[in-house]
Amino acid sequence: MELPRSREELAKYIDHTLLNPSASYSEIDKLCDEARLYGFYAVCVNPIHVARCRQRLQGTDVKVVSVVGFPFGASRTDVKTEEASRAIDDGADEIDFVMNIGALRSGDLLMVRRDMEQMASLVKDRGKLSKVILETGYLTDDQKAIACQLAVEAGIDFVKTSTGYGPKGATVEDVMLMKRAVGNRARVKAAGGITDAGKAMAMIGAGASRIGSSHGVQILLSFNPNVEKSGRTSLSTSALHSPI
Amino acid sequence: MELPRSREELAKYIDHTLLNPSASYSEIDKLCDEARLYGFYAVCVNPIHVARCRQRLQGTDVKVVSVVGFPFGASRTDVKTEEASRAIDDGADEIDFVMNIGALRSGDLLMVRRDMEQMASLVKDRGKLSKVILETGYLTDDQKAIACQLAVEAGIDFVKTSTGYGPKGATVEDVMLMKRAVGNRARVKAAGGITDAGKAMAMIGAGASRIGSSHGVQILLSFNPNVEKSGRTSLSTSALHSPI
Repeated sequence: MELPRSREELAKYIDHTLLNPSASYSEIDKLCDEARLYGFYAVCVNPIHVARCRQRLQGTDVKVVSVVGFPFGASRTDVKTEEASRAIDDGADEIDFVMNIGALRSGDLLMVRRDMEQMASLVKDRGKLSKVILETGYLTDDQKAIACQLAVEAGIDFVKTSTGYGPKGATVEDVMLMKRAVGNRARVKAAGGITDAGKAMAMIGAGASRIGSSHGVQILLSFNPNVEKSGRTSLSTSALHSPI
Repeated sequence: MELPRSREELAKYIDHTLLNPSASYSEIDKLCDEARLYGFYAVCVNPIHVARCRQRLQGTDVKVVSVVGFPFGASRTDVKTEEASRAIDDGADEIDFVMNIGALRSGDLLMVRRDMEQMASLVKDRGKLSKVILETGYLTDDQKAIACQLAVEAGIDFVKTSTGYGPKGATVEDVMLMKRAVGNRARVKAAGGITDAGKAMAMIGAGASRIGSSHGVQILLSFNPNVEKSGRTSLSTSALHSPI
């Protein structure tokens, strides 16, 4: 696996994210402008802002990601598919939805899978990409692996660690577990608490193909190709040389 | 305004609430059984659990409240109305939805009002009650008052302080402000951080007609009619007698 070797390459891993429910229109505009300026892969916003972002990003190659059923995932499946469909109408390229966490924790795998299948199929039929957010902070390792397995069977494109509003953000351990569970049949998006280049590179090193963060600019500005080029290993090596 | 003078009367103010996205089916069943046992006004749950609660509470007078667009309120209005409609199909008696916070903070009052109007009218047409959650923790006092005014004009039945998942819960000051703003044209529901009888009585004393809490049982068990019967005043009076 190749790690990004420049700010430009790293930027292409990042969904530049603003999901705070109190975000104003001007803050959303700023997010879009930063995404264009720094060359982020996408912006990631709440459904009410998708049309605005699509318009503001016209003529750029920055994608628009909409969350759905966010951040609880506790909406009926038919409401989630409706929300995804409207977001795509508004211009969303990718849909990040939260799985039915309560159903998984109740052992109702049929419900979890049906929810994922209907979302995956709606999004795929519209020619877009789906990501299912597991909210790992609520799950045991076994439950994380089961959710990944169900996601792959349902035809989901990405499994994503966290909403950023749950009990825990992304960890290297969870990204590794999820990548092992999905193999080459899906990709992994790490999100939640990724605030600098070191953390972002660690997630990529662990198997993440996409980073969700509301600190995208900070991640890029803290990136130092000479330090980061070999990822976590180089950090350990440099630690050996430090005058402890 | 009359304060509740017994546990039975206090219970009728309380929406017994479980909104944690990780709640399992058995935890939801327990919530319903407690609501029946203690005589709470209602249970308040996420949409995926409404049908289950309706069934489990058959033959009782406990109402079922569904949240909608929860807890961010950042869904399109047509998705919120769809979610409310499905919740009512599933057996919900009342709909607690989150307003478009970002629109209010952007000064887009037309959007805030249209969102409220469409929700109020859908819910009223189905013969149910609507509550709009302002999430006061994100708002200035002026914005809280404007939101209340828009809610009244839209025909909303209750204005509600908080989701319990935002930056702040209910306060006596916010309940008073909101009650003053809506007058007799709407009621006030206080929710978020109300964990015992003292806090619940303070909210009722300030003008709340309904209390949302995931600590309903604790509120009842901590209720002492001799101490609480005159609400906040008695607390102040007893403080005068304390040997400071």
